[in-house]
Amino acid sequence: MPNYFRSNVDAMASYVPGEQPPRGTQIVKLNSNENPYPPSPAALAVLRKIDGEWLRRYPEPLGGEFREAASKVLGVPNDWIIVGNGSDELLSVVIRTCAEPGRKVVYPMPTYVLYRTLTEMQAADITEIAYREDYSLPIEELVAVNGSVTFIASPNSPSGHVVPIDDLRKLASQLSGVLAIDEAYVDFTEENALALVKEYENVIVIRTLSKGYSLAGLRLGFGIANPKLLDGLFKVKDSYNIDAIACAVGTAAITDQDYKNACVAKIKASRTKLATDLKKLGFHIWDSQTNFLLTQPPQGNAEYLYQKLKEQGILIRYFKQPGLENKLRITIGTDEQNQTLMEALIYLLGSG
Amino acid sequence: MPNYFRSNVDAMASYVPGEQPPRGTQIVKLNSNENPYPPSPAALAVLRKIDGEWLRRYPEPLGGEFREAASKVLGVPNDWIIVGNGSDELLSVVIRTCAEPGRKVVYPMPTYVLYRTLTEMQAADITEIAYREDYSLPIEELVAVNGSVTFIASPNSPSGHVVPIDDLRKLASQLSGVLAIDEAYVDFTEENALALVKEYENVIVIRTLSKGYSLAGLRLGFGIANPKLLDGLFKVKDSYNIDAIACAVGTAAITDQDYKNACVAKIKASRTKLATDLKKLGFHIWDSQTNFLLTQPPQGNAEYLYQKLKEQGILIRYFKQPGLENKLRITIGTDEQNQTLMEALIYLLGSG
Repeated sequence: MPNYFRSNVDAMASYVPGEQPPRGTQIVKLNSNENPYPPSPAALAVLRKIDGEWLRRYPEPLGGEFREAASKVLGVPNDWIIVGNGSDELLSVVIRTCAEPGRKVVYPMPTYVLYRTLTEMQAADITEIAYREDYSLPIEELVAVNGSVTFIASPNSPSGHVVPIDDLRKLASQLSGVLAIDEAYVDFTEENALALVKEYENVIVIRTLSKGYSLAGLRLGFGIANPKLLDGLFKVKDSYNIDAIACAVGTAAITDQDYKNACVAKIKASRTKLATDLKKLGFHIWDSQTNFLLTQPPQGNAEYLYQKLKEQGILIRYFKQPGLENKLRITIGTDEQNQTLMEALIYLLGSG
Repeated sequence: MPNYFRSNVDAMASYVPGEQPPRGTQIVKLNSNENPYPPSPAALAVLRKIDGEWLRRYPEPLGGEFREAASKVLGVPNDWIIVGNGSDELLSVVIRTCAEPGRKVVYPMPTYVLYRTLTEMQAADITEIAYREDYSLPIEELVAVNGSVTFIASPNSPSGHVVPIDDLRKLASQLSGVLAIDEAYVDFTEENALALVKEYENVIVIRTLSKGYSLAGLRLGFGIANPKLLDGLFKVKDSYNIDAIACAVGTAAITDQDYKNACVAKIKASRTKLATDLKKLGFHIWDSQTNFLLTQPPQGNAEYLYQKLKEQGILIRYFKQPGLENKLRITIGTDEQNQTLMEALIYLLGSG
């Protein structure tokens, strides 16, 4: 076969998303950090109102209605917001706007694997810097690289920890490139880095409706940054990147903060209970500010447990990666789902 | 401001999509080649069935349900189909997979302006070759460039003509790079190039549900190609690029061929009538195999007419581009919309 593809595309591995069994499969799905509760009734009510005229026409290129709603919730002007086909698209747009061969992309490890995939795709230079043992941020090392793009997920996956805003501020002030703070899990913690976009024009905060708002199926994410930074990103994003339904439903969802907060409160309570239960079984549990737990099983048999649970229709996440081989990432489900998981684990560890 | 952006992004102009007035604005919108009829009732019925569980979970990464339906309609295997967030995303994915600085992207002009924007974004080398006066394809010149990607829109916009399949076959057989045939308007013509994907592994045919299926607001496109070619594209597309609703609604829409064909038949009849009426007014009309007409007003006052019509709430498309300054592209609306346009034109040309 002739070399149709760019050499970096030939060489790269595909990003492997969490398993997504077809709708209707009977499983306990705790592998992709989905919210176990349905989206806001207000969002579903808007969905019921979508008619043919709405779908027949092109959507607004910039998602005006959603920007306006997000602007009110966040307290930033409309034109500080960019909307994406999921936050993944915005991560890709940041890389495609700012990175290229000879420019560096840097991030602390372990973190969201997609940063690497997107950088390889763009043939930019990758620098991965290990988090310290206690998951504190290696600020000096990151600053020394001074990447065209520095990614920090906060809260981070799979560790579940929040990077203190003062650390992010130090980073922002010392970098001459873009600092992209991926706050996909921000709804499950008290802290966030939104204030930094007003302080530093090189900072973009990226969020999603997939986690806190239970809308992973809708594909809607957004970024907040100084319009000077957004100017470049707007050139690179697809003209009609978000569909009319996502815009309308997402608008209702982000407006209904009470519902989201109520779901988050339930998930946090379940997180505390699941962490306690797992500790009793001998698991090591890292503090989590997210809707998942990074865990280390007592007998170092992480992959075995992952496989055995899968056979029983319980999906959790196992990463075959340095530093993660003996760990499991478990999404917080409903109390009932978490109980099913616990029963299976008690049996497996007892008989293993 | 520091140089956050790649120099090619700094230098490039944004793609300017057709004006999309907010929902509820009273206008006759004939500027973006939307279908004037609503989507299939079967598609809207599926939309009514979407529930919270559907939205809470991530969609299938490859859009399995839609691929299966499209596979049946097109008579190609599932794994010959890639699904995109509109066909625009697939055009972008083709470029990002195959083009880069030092690799050439080539296409005949005038055509869809986005090919240029996407190529500039990727910093690949652009070669634009003029169509002959009669819109026949400059095959030898295109072959001589031998681009990593050659784009041919067929039917083409804004000319409305179909490129004969034998011309496309000659091109495919002589190119060592990818031939991307953009069939966004294929539903309005009898001919198509689908057969070529089975003959040549370097050919991808790209389609959309925005035009024939009245789903521009949904963002759903698809490509058909040899799985060897799709392998590279799958690496580059976003993991969850199409949302769960688009997948389900699009599946119902493409399955309902009878409804689509009935809408297309109405549009073709309206196209004939509008072309006849415009000719009577002294317009030159190019033959169209699409849902729009490329027209040249009798008095060389294309931009004036565009502006005056806009003031009256009638949007058509004017391209300030070499060879198009004296022309107007008019989407085929309902007979009633077309009549409104005709009355406005009769008044403007009489009083102008």
